[in-house]
Amino acid sequence: MSEFPVSSRASKIEYAIRDVVVPAMKLESQGHTILKLNIGDPLAYPGFPTPDHMIDAFCDGLRNQRNGYSPSYGLPELREAIALDESRKKNGGWNCTFEDVYVCHGVTEALQIIFAAFLQPGDKILAPGPHYPPYMAYPQLFSGETVEYELDEENGWSIDIDDLESKMDDKVRLIVVINPNNPTGGVANKSQLEAIINIAGSWPNCAILSDEIYDEINFKGNHYSTASLSQNVPVITLNGVSKVFYAPGWRIGYMAWHDPHDELLLVRDGVERLLRSRLCASTPAQLGYLAGLEGPREWMNGYTNRLLKQRNLCIQRIQSIDGLEVTKPDGSFYMFVRHTDEKWKSNDKEFVLKLLHEEHVLVVHGSGFSPEYGQGHFRIVFLPALEILNEAFDRIECFLIKHRK
Amino acid sequence: MSEFPVSSRASKIEYAIRDVVVPAMKLESQGHTILKLNIGDPLAYPGFPTPDHMIDAFCDGLRNQRNGYSPSYGLPELREAIALDESRKKNGGWNCTFEDVYVCHGVTEALQIIFAAFLQPGDKILAPGPHYPPYMAYPQLFSGETVEYELDEENGWSIDIDDLESKMDDKVRLIVVINPNNPTGGVANKSQLEAIINIAGSWPNCAILSDEIYDEINFKGNHYSTASLSQNVPVITLNGVSKVFYAPGWRIGYMAWHDPHDELLLVRDGVERLLRSRLCASTPAQLGYLAGLEGPREWMNGYTNRLLKQRNLCIQRIQSIDGLEVTKPDGSFYMFVRHTDEKWKSNDKEFVLKLLHEEHVLVVHGSGFSPEYGQGHFRIVFLPALEILNEAFDRIECFLIKHRK
Repeated sequence: MSEFPVSSRASKIEYAIRDVVVPAMKLESQGHTILKLNIGDPLAYPGFPTPDHMIDAFCDGLRNQRNGYSPSYGLPELREAIALDESRKKNGGWNCTFEDVYVCHGVTEALQIIFAAFLQPGDKILAPGPHYPPYMAYPQLFSGETVEYELDEENGWSIDIDDLESKMDDKVRLIVVINPNNPTGGVANKSQLEAIINIAGSWPNCAILSDEIYDEINFKGNHYSTASLSQNVPVITLNGVSKVFYAPGWRIGYMAWHDPHDELLLVRDGVERLLRSRLCASTPAQLGYLAGLEGPREWMNGYTNRLLKQRNLCIQRIQSIDGLEVTKPDGSFYMFVRHTDEKWKSNDKEFVLKLLHEEHVLVVHGSGFSPEYGQGHFRIVFLPALEILNEAFDRIECFLIKHRK
Repeated sequence: MSEFPVSSRASKIEYAIRDVVVPAMKLESQGHTILKLNIGDPLAYPGFPTPDHMIDAFCDGLRNQRNGYSPSYGLPELREAIALDESRKKNGGWNCTFEDVYVCHGVTEALQIIFAAFLQPGDKILAPGPHYPPYMAYPQLFSGETVEYELDEENGWSIDIDDLESKMDDKVRLIVVINPNNPTGGVANKSQLEAIINIAGSWPNCAILSDEIYDEINFKGNHYSTASLSQNVPVITLNGVSKVFYAPGWRIGYMAWHDPHDELLLVRDGVERLLRSRLCASTPAQLGYLAGLEGPREWMNGYTNRLLKQRNLCIQRIQSIDGLEVTKPDGSFYMFVRHTDEKWKSNDKEFVLKLLHEEHVLVVHGSGFSPEYGQGHFRIVFLPALEILNEAFDRIECFLIKHRK
């Protein structure tokens, strides 16, 4: 029997965050306990439960038999609540109406649909290096190409506007902003966002895709919504229930289209066709998210304070470990740690696999977040409790000492 | 300002079932009540609630904080339960293990992933005409083409094996079987399925995609699992919680890979990469489906009996209406009604839109299910209660009489 060929688009997909889980699961099946600092899932750690009022609303939906299909673009009441939320962002919102909002199976589905509707053969997107892996994986699914622009580690992982500008051409259809960034935790300042808007506006048919899924996990309150700063340039904002509302397993995200001069009508028609063809996002889960958006948010402060303490411990531990350096993240629950030891600078995946096997600590290699700018780093998640983080850093420190010889 | 171009792959997407909803919603917003015989959603009609034991398990998952990500291929316990279900199908199962099963956001996501992994430019799939619209819409998203093989209306919408065979060539990567069929309700017999398996096996790199989402809505108990009949040819079975377990809004489906000679290892690797990149299906919803699979199924008999009564009423009404004919469906909750009046034979979409505007009855035009074999038909859903169905047929009858002049 011959083996069936696989499409090259599928065989090229890489998702480092889950790919390192395969060897970790093998170790677990052998009875080992792994300290997991790899996955951005608050529910995998104690201290970040999904709030009860959201769960109550979700269960009410189930018990009230809201178990059928819902409108393909999302429940109208949820679209309204999201629009209101976008219009009231802390440092300024934008004029978002419910018709601008489309509800998806998480931001990952929104990305697939956006790239499917925007990209023709030869088109490009610009994405930050480092970035969340689907920004590399998905454009090529739809005959596009991702080009990375540099985040400047020396300057707090800020966006290198000159580098971005140097990579623009008339094939760039979308500039991706991930803010706060995954994996660096960097938060873009207002002038950087304004510069990107100006650059996009100076090229034909170039819009901005602004992934703001961590927007309210922002320790300095210095996050700006990209759409709120754009008068003319189209901006598509991505967000959802997963991170800020601590319910990633519900798989509800959204895209909100800010298109001041109706330049995206054709693309939106394509997006709407794709949305209708796949029916809808989970109906009862949308009611849970709605309760989160409409309910009180004071509980978020407690969660953020906990994250802040855990972040600070990690910073303190890393500063005391020879061979590691890190830029303090102002948002998200990630930090992107740099190796200063030559041994690991060009072997970051080897570091991750050896650390896993010898010390049973799981992190993700930096090159998994950027072929060009990630090498020599690893991402950690600071969701685990202080004692787990301390234990993990003890082991990382021992590992580095042992391998320095 | 210029308008941004849309990709041709997105602009070509058609999904007739939801596309006709747009004018219907407009009428509703004007205060009209529409009798909806258009959408295959049991929850949209009284009498088919999602069972309590499934809702209880889903809510328990939520309250037990199973709100984080789950493994990308599905919860292990659900994959086990699905595998057991596939191995115990009424007329014979197949040797399915949990590793053969991948859980998705409904069958629609499974289709996208399968076509993305299988299809290279120039590849084809064969699908029944008429068929559920994504089988036409999705292959072209991934540079493939759908060719229809004929379902023979004269013979109870049975598969025309000669026609199918005549359309085979070495570019056909998948033969799609929809059994019971949407929109015809036809159930394939054993010898037809065996003939298709033989045809697929006689060509290189051709597998079978068997959509069995309505398998237990089968009034004669004559449904066979395609995979159970195949000794050598790879068969991917599609099914889920939506129809047989009456919870379409939960968005949980699966694909189960029967690959007797490990010919699909490369394609599966691509599928697994795609699955990991999009994280997971809803975690708590998987627990609701698990309870359905592991719980009692006697409740299904009541639902099926209700459907059977409603089907029989529709058949009886159609037989008495001049201008309509129909083949009695043995499965699903659809029937595909034929116009015998020349006026509508080549204007089935006009019929649907006029019927909607004049009589406020919504059905779906046949050409939306097949450009080649659907014209001159319309699909009705026999989920509504008897009095609604009677009222709808009264209006359809009046409409036909009025327009016969």
